Parts: sequence; C-alpha cells; structure tokens
Amino acid sequence: MSGPAVHPVQVEAPPMTEAPPPRVRMKDIQGMAGTTGGLFLRLCQFVFAAVSLCVMASTFDFPVFTAFCYLVAAVGLQSLWSLSLAILDAYAILVRRNFRNHAVVRLFAVGDGITSTLTFAAACASAGITVLMGNDFENCDINNCKRFMSATAMAFLSWFAATPSFLLNFWSLASQ
Amino acid sequence: MSGPAVHPVQVEAPPMTEAPPPRVRMKDIQGMAGTTGGLFLRLCQFVFAAVSLCVMASTFDFPVFTAFCYLVAAVGLQSLWSLSLAILDAYAILVRRNFRNHAVVRLFAVGDGITSTLTFAAACASAGITVLMGNDFENCDINNCKRFMSATAMAFLSWFAATPSFLLNFWSLASQ
Repeated sequence: MSGPAVHPVQVEAPPMTEAPPPRVRMKDIQGMAGTTGGLFLRLCQFVFAAVSLCVMASTFDFPVFTAFCYLVAAVGLQSLWSLSLAILDAYAILVRRNFRNHAVVRLFAVGDGITSTLTFAAACASAGITVLMGNDFENCDINNCKRFMSATAMAFLSWFAATPSFLLNFWSLASQ
Repeated sequence: MSGPAVHPVQVEAPPMTEAPPPRVRMKDIQGMAGTTGGLFLRLCQFVFAAVSLCVMASTFDFPVFTAFCYLVAAVGLQSLWSLSLAILDAYAILVRRNFRNHAVVRLFAVGDGITSTLTFAAACASAGITVLMGNDFENCDINNCKRFMSATAMAFLSWFAATPSFLLNFWSLASQ
C-alpha cells in the first residue's frame, strides 16, 4: 500500500465550517469597488448628482441654455451609474465578496472614466456660463443665478467624489 | 587559495564595450515618457496648446470673458509643461535611456493630471460660452465667434493628446 500521493483524486476537500470567511482582503484599498469606502464614495456621487439634477430642473429657464441642458443629462447619467454601483458595492459587502475579476474592474474603470469626464465637462461649461452671467454681464437679477451656481457646485462635488473611484479602479486594473 | 567567492570586492565589472546599449525596452509602451510615441504626444500637446493660445490672444475682446482669460492661462501652462517634457523625451531618446525612476514617473503623472484637467476645464468653459453665443443668443456677428471656437477646439485637441500621456504614466506608476 502506497501513501496518499498516488491517489490524488481521493484527497478530500477541507470540511466546510460555519464560520464566515475572514474579512481581511489583500491589496484592497478603502475606496475600491467592494469596500465600505467605495460604497461611501458611490453614495456621495449619487447624492451630489441627484441634488444637482433636482436644483437645475427646478429652474424654469434652464432649457434656454444648452450647457445647462447638458448638465442635466450628465448628472442624470452620473446618478444612475453611481446608484447602480452603490447597490453592487452594498451587495458585495453584505455577502463579503470583492471584485477581483479583471473584466469587471475594467468595466468599472471605463464607466467611471466616461461618467466623471462628462460630469466634469458639464460642470465646467455651466460654471463658465454662471461666471459670465454673474461677473462679466452682472445680470444675475433676471436669472436664477443662485440655483444655477448651486447645481454647478453640486456637479463639481459629484466629480470630486467620482475621481477617486476612477483612479482607484484604474490603479487596481494596472496592478493586477 | 580559495575561490573568488571570498573576494567579492575584487570581482571586476564587465568591460565597457563601444557598442550602444540595446534599444529594446521591456514593458515600455509607445506613448510612455522616453519613447518616440511619448515625444509625438508631447509635441501634439504643445502645438495645439500654443495655437489655441495664439488664436485666443489674437482676439481683441477675450479679456471681457473670464472663461477665455482662464483658457489663455491654462493652455499657456499646458504648452510650457508639454514643451519641457518634449525636450526631456527627446534627450532620453538621444541618449537611449528611459524613465524607470519611480519619483520621476510620479512627478510626470501628477503634472499631467493637473495640466490636462486644467486644460479640459478651460476648454469646456469656453465651449459653453461659444455655444451660448452661437446657438442660444445668435450674436456671433458682433463677437469673434470663429476665433473663439477655433481656440476652444485646439484646447480640446491638446487635452486629447494629454490624456494618453497621463493614463500611460499612471499605468506605469501602478504597475511598477
């Protein structure tokens, strides 16, 4: 009778224990997808984008300005994207998994890059127009300047929260 | 008498040959710092930013608009940064070295991130105002609309050339 080395298929799998898997995740930086930091960033992005959308939509004359229409579209897309990924992050935290799949991280990085660039572009265009109205032409009285400025500021804050997500996902993709 | 292992300081360096070092660079993707692709990207960034600066500065009424003044500052900074790095790239190609130093690549990535973000923000703000003048208010006759649009388009092209440099440097930093 020889040792167990000649019967490798009969080696049993380790018994399943009822204890949860350890929560230590190697190479996971807080803010990456599947961490509580990542969930916090996603929620920040979603809240700021949604507030920006609501404030801009509450002004009656935003469709006059192309840039403000674009802002509404961009923060709408950003809020949908961030909400979807917040739900995924919450699920990943609840089932104690993380996103180590290369394709998934690439999808997140590309999506984050596109949505954050669109949000930033819309925020900059809106900021250019609010500054034009406020400082250069000084006709803030006839326009909803404060609401335009608030919506623009919220879009910038959403972009500030989206940039770390993009950079961390890109970093995670490059270091895999 | 023992072998050379006990006299490690007497081990001679390999003799210097007059042949140039091999030009194969591992892990170097065309477009990274120190490659001909990188030099091409830097020259594109510099040329587009410089043309944008000249076209915008040639209009007499750009200081009326805050966003156009910001565009001039941003593409000025972008052209200086890109020119400096183009010179460094050209030197690196001439002496057949590459930038493997972690601190240098980090400096490049941070500088690229800042300048490209500033250029993109300025281009978006200017685009918002040119669209406002052209489409929304249709008073392009009294303004230098075509020059404003050309300068904005050149700033966008400069940003398009700057983004690969930033992403490749960031990738190189993460994968080191």
